[in-house]
Amino acid sequence: MKKINTKPISGMSELLPEKWAIFKELKQKVLTSFERNGFWEIETPIIERGEVLLAKAGGETEKQIYRVSKVEEGAGQALRFDHTVPLARYVAEHQNELNFPFRATQIGRNFRGERAQKGRLREFYQCDVDIIGSDLSLCYDAEVIRTLAETLAEILPKTEQAVMMVSNRKILMGLIEELELNDKSTMILGVIDKRDKIGEEKVLEILVEEVGEEKALRILEVIRMVGKDKLFFENLRKIGVKNKMFQEGVEELELLAEMIEGVEAEFDMAIVRGLDYYTGTVFETKLINRPEAGSVCSGGRYENLTSNFSKRVFPGVGGSIGLSRLFAVLENEFVAGGKLGDLVVMAMSEKEYLVASKIAKMAREKGMKVAVLVIGKKVGEELAIAEKNYEFAMIIGEEEASGKKEIRMKNLQSRTEVGFLDYLGDKK
Amino acid sequence: MKKINTKPISGMSELLPEKWAIFKELKQKVLTSFERNGFWEIETPIIERGEVLLAKAGGETEKQIYRVSKVEEGAGQALRFDHTVPLARYVAEHQNELNFPFRATQIGRNFRGERAQKGRLREFYQCDVDIIGSDLSLCYDAEVIRTLAETLAEILPKTEQAVMMVSNRKILMGLIEELELNDKSTMILGVIDKRDKIGEEKVLEILVEEVGEEKALRILEVIRMVGKDKLFFENLRKIGVKNKMFQEGVEELELLAEMIEGVEAEFDMAIVRGLDYYTGTVFETKLINRPEAGSVCSGGRYENLTSNFSKRVFPGVGGSIGLSRLFAVLENEFVAGGKLGDLVVMAMSEKEYLVASKIAKMAREKGMKVAVLVIGKKVGEELAIAEKNYEFAMIIGEEEASGKKEIRMKNLQSRTEVGFLDYLGDKK
Repeated sequence: MKKINTKPISGMSELLPEKWAIFKELKQKVLTSFERNGFWEIETPIIERGEVLLAKAGGETEKQIYRVSKVEEGAGQALRFDHTVPLARYVAEHQNELNFPFRATQIGRNFRGERAQKGRLREFYQCDVDIIGSDLSLCYDAEVIRTLAETLAEILPKTEQAVMMVSNRKILMGLIEELELNDKSTMILGVIDKRDKIGEEKVLEILVEEVGEEKALRILEVIRMVGKDKLFFENLRKIGVKNKMFQEGVEELELLAEMIEGVEAEFDMAIVRGLDYYTGTVFETKLINRPEAGSVCSGGRYENLTSNFSKRVFPGVGGSIGLSRLFAVLENEFVAGGKLGDLVVMAMSEKEYLVASKIAKMAREKGMKVAVLVIGKKVGEELAIAEKNYEFAMIIGEEEASGKKEIRMKNLQSRTEVGFLDYLGDKK
Repeated sequence: MKKINTKPISGMSELLPEKWAIFKELKQKVLTSFERNGFWEIETPIIERGEVLLAKAGGETEKQIYRVSKVEEGAGQALRFDHTVPLARYVAEHQNELNFPFRATQIGRNFRGERAQKGRLREFYQCDVDIIGSDLSLCYDAEVIRTLAETLAEILPKTEQAVMMVSNRKILMGLIEELELNDKSTMILGVIDKRDKIGEEKVLEILVEEVGEEKALRILEVIRMVGKDKLFFENLRKIGVKNKMFQEGVEELELLAEMIEGVEAEFDMAIVRGLDYYTGTVFETKLINRPEAGSVCSGGRYENLTSNFSKRVFPGVGGSIGLSRLFAVLENEFVAGGKLGDLVVMAMSEKEYLVASKIAKMAREKGMKVAVLVIGKKVGEELAIAEKNYEFAMIIGEEEASGKKEIRMKNLQSRTEVGFLDYLGDKK
């Protein structure tokens, strides 16, 4: 026997049932909340054409992608690395069958072949909402942010709170235009996006080197701006950037601020998001008690995601909760809603199985989660094991099976007993 | 602009929201039923080491597998083709942390790179239940069959019914032993498994060629046997095979017949299942009104699935509902439970968004699925579109937003109206 390595591949999540139950409950709550917010779930295939996935992606993504191949068919198929690109393809493909604005939610696993570390898996769950449509009002940016904030509030443990950190890319892009640095915009946004990792001093150092001290300081002045009220927008205007795109960005952001009234939000000009396709509103989140965890939810507005797939232009706005990351960061703070099973029916031997099975059926019809066990003589041992995972246990011996003895349920937590039929009668 | 092919890769399922809602509802019902039957959901990674997936697989599977590779890391990772092999690895890996018998359910997508056709996708959902443990009573075979039969009954449309077709591999293996054909057993079982495809005549022709007429006819005599009651077992014994394994198989099957009392089942000696790892009970299903659809649910007992991963032997019994296949076969018979959304709140302009958003929030707090739309002047047009996907619509103009006019909900189906606050008050 050749012994094969049974550890999951590095970066693949594998949870024991107790943990999975918690994770799943979160996943379900997310979906329920998204649906309540008027998003429709879709699922796109896990395998896509390589050309689809790479149509818009930059160099980083290309390096991370898993190529899928069959010996006969060669390469050209790949695992998706996010939900947004497949959604763009989906919208392009089905544009004549969908009504716009199309509010979609996708909850599933994505794949990135980068180095795995705590909170950064190679296979991970993301929960996305997107609104796609032509001539898309800024209200939809607010809808997306509201939905995500409400959902986060619903799934976060009581000890934690998220703040939405919002900006608008037009502000920095406008500044860059005014400084006549358009040819360096990707580099500049990239450096700013890394601020939390490399520190502000390093950002300044790189910017000075690339664009000179004067312009670097001007950029630094803007990306340092953080605030949550009218005063913030006054200060932003006081900087005196005349550029039209900059002005437009400030106006949009201020209007959005009104539209998301009631959402725990801050405005932070250093928020740019790594991906190229954002063109307006961008947002990340900060966990108040764990800012070091980074963003567990982010997104923004993209004006033309489907350009590789369709002649028609489809603007969209969307965002995603990184459920796997959130779970990794707060794992020990999430508590299971209950035991994995409600009742375990223990048949003393195979002879009592049919009776045990009928009893299980009655309990299942009341919606209980019921397992049947054939235990032999080890009653005490089996009860001790059952305690961990079930609310109730029941033992069916010869006498119970023949009706000579009443069938009773043991409450494994309170260590009390109740007649099975009485209990069922009480459940509606 | 290079136009990229936006069709999903052949064999990948992609459903529009209305269809997905139906599919998802089925998926949820399956899970609920599995859990009610005492199975615990787990998920194993979609990507596994190639050596794990190929440890037990035969030649056919090896050809179908998708290889996953990253340019830097080389091959050696692959997409899973079923849930059973990853479960075996999971059990081997976590054997010291799990309680046995371990009742697991997995509901997710598997991948096979074979030729796609109606009802046979390359990426497909399977819903598995398995019970793993040492010294596993035959009762657990019954538990698996009961769970799957109950679940099928729950998700099938009213026009369709499934019959479990059950056998025990020991019967044919014993016969093969008695006929001294052990070295040809894989070939023989393979031919029998293809009976529905190639026809009984062809089966006989191949068997005659391979093992001679006398032995071929003996095999044919057994695999023709079908029945559902005591008489069937009498006839099976009358064939007069002395072999011990054969006798054991008949006894097990007869005992199982008692244990699954009440389940719609038949015994069919031609049921062998393609995969190598089954060693006892095997079963498939037949849809009464669409026998040509083939089996939508199958499984069996395996004595030693973890042999490649662990020194300890873990017998198991399990089965799987091929949800994607079932859905493809009966697609038009499944009916959606309701509209995708409950309410669409239409703001006449961005000015009314905040009020619309607050109203949406109130309705969402009552559990309704609510979308907010900014519509401009096209009220009639928007209401016509909304009719398809929402129960109710609501229009928020200047007067409604300012409180001058009562906010009313239009029932898009009955075309009646009701005051929003009255409606909310009636909902608990």
